[in-house]
Amino acid sequence: MTELQSSLWAIEKHDFLELHYRATKQLFADQSPFQRVEVFDTEKYGKILLNDGYVMLTEADEFIYHDMLVHVPLFVHPQPRRVLIIGGGDGGTAREVLRHPGVERCVMVEIDQMVVDACREHIPQTAKMLDDPRLDLQIADGVEYVAQTEETFDVVLVDSTDPIGPATPLFGVDFYRNVHRVLNADGMVVSQGESPFYFAEMQNKLLMVLQECFPIVRLYNYSNLGYPGGLWSFTFAAKSLDPIADFDPQRVTDSGLEFEYYNAAIHQAAFALPSFLARRVAALQG
Amino acid sequence: MTELQSSLWAIEKHDFLELHYRATKQLFADQSPFQRVEVFDTEKYGKILLNDGYVMLTEADEFIYHDMLVHVPLFVHPQPRRVLIIGGGDGGTAREVLRHPGVERCVMVEIDQMVVDACREHIPQTAKMLDDPRLDLQIADGVEYVAQTEETFDVVLVDSTDPIGPATPLFGVDFYRNVHRVLNADGMVVSQGESPFYFAEMQNKLLMVLQECFPIVRLYNYSNLGYPGGLWSFTFAAKSLDPIADFDPQRVTDSGLEFEYYNAAIHQAAFALPSFLARRVAALQG
Repeated sequence: MTELQSSLWAIEKHDFLELHYRATKQLFADQSPFQRVEVFDTEKYGKILLNDGYVMLTEADEFIYHDMLVHVPLFVHPQPRRVLIIGGGDGGTAREVLRHPGVERCVMVEIDQMVVDACREHIPQTAKMLDDPRLDLQIADGVEYVAQTEETFDVVLVDSTDPIGPATPLFGVDFYRNVHRVLNADGMVVSQGESPFYFAEMQNKLLMVLQECFPIVRLYNYSNLGYPGGLWSFTFAAKSLDPIADFDPQRVTDSGLEFEYYNAAIHQAAFALPSFLARRVAALQG
Repeated sequence: MTELQSSLWAIEKHDFLELHYRATKQLFADQSPFQRVEVFDTEKYGKILLNDGYVMLTEADEFIYHDMLVHVPLFVHPQPRRVLIIGGGDGGTAREVLRHPGVERCVMVEIDQMVVDACREHIPQTAKMLDDPRLDLQIADGVEYVAQTEETFDVVLVDSTDPIGPATPLFGVDFYRNVHRVLNADGMVVSQGESPFYFAEMQNKLLMVLQECFPIVRLYNYSNLGYPGGLWSFTFAAKSLDPIADFDPQRVTDSGLEFEYYNAAIHQAAFALPSFLARRVAALQG
């Protein structure tokens, strides 16, 4: 550590752990009707977005989360044309969805205008596709949107924060009954699935809710820099398609798309669960 | 956070990040000839061991690291009878090796008596097998040991800290030439392989050193709670056996052993590398 280094830190506080990211500048800080939104710049991680003091993304590793949330279902569904994103205000999920040339329409329903505006201004790396003509960005409540819309979708992506604050109803059964309703017959939903260490109870609850609504429910894992505890999960729930049995690795090659994290081997590997987690999921599935 | 919570923290400091673990008690702190050794107790993670201020293990997640270091090679080698551990003073690696009933002799060469003593006293969870009659624990320099011993081994496990302080020579080519020398014809060595994000340069260097010495060199990944950045790696290097092609998943089932993290699917999945890492490794391998 040199004396020239900044003494500014972006701090994520848990009762049991604090993560202090050395920052060079606070670029944005304001309170929206839903949460406190902050953007810091750092030397090591690029820009960092925090909502209510929790790191949502860093520029250095956001590719991991967005690759694994988007490309897993979009390479399982045989022809994803219509995609619905719930949340995802930073724009990274939309950016990855729109890389698939077969996607004709992507509706993104983000509750918090401030997150979108802050990322448009300070994190163009994720926000850069928010003006794409195929994207229909609506500032609205995702829970109400799926309850009321008459549109249907091939894939729904729930790009939410943890179930505290505005994202709480996104972990409930009423929401997922409506997600099921708006999904086509081959439809599937992938959701931010929490940490099997730190948020095991929330993860279990989400899995049980999904099992009430869908015949196929799986968990898959990834690791990034910005979420504590290493191993994090997405849930995959579908009406008819299995994410391994119905996945054709050749489609990834044939797409001509290149990803920083995702590839066909990683797709399949992500569904291999550590024993403690495999046993927990098996117990839930009775 | 309540006012009753302790204000004691075990702090791991990097230039770009600090991890503050809330502790209930400092159980041990002393300076050995090699490093500063500390043990803290915590509510969330159980006991935490730090060497020179870096978290070596927490009781809550040490099973991940030890499972993946030990059981991957021990289920690739067809009949591992003689195992050499370099480092591993906390005893967790030896504990997992000795669960394999076919292992007749395990030599563990740890440079720092203080780490062994502190873990014997404060972390019996990892140290509990250090008096097993099949274990030959030697307090000595692992680099000198492999240079001088006339014994040979089926598997060598390099359970080292980062290449700063006493572990530096464990990342050099002279050391691995000697590891090659003490390995039998089907022999293999697995080493703590660093973080592909935070320590990419060290990881590349280690891979290049291994490629100078072994025909088969692979990287595999795991995630735990106590190492920053999520994704961490082990290197696998062998004289003749491939960790996927020569792995028989049935052997895991037939062993009757149950693990908290390791299983046959995780074994295979661990070798699937994210694209950025697969490309980096491919570039090194020319």
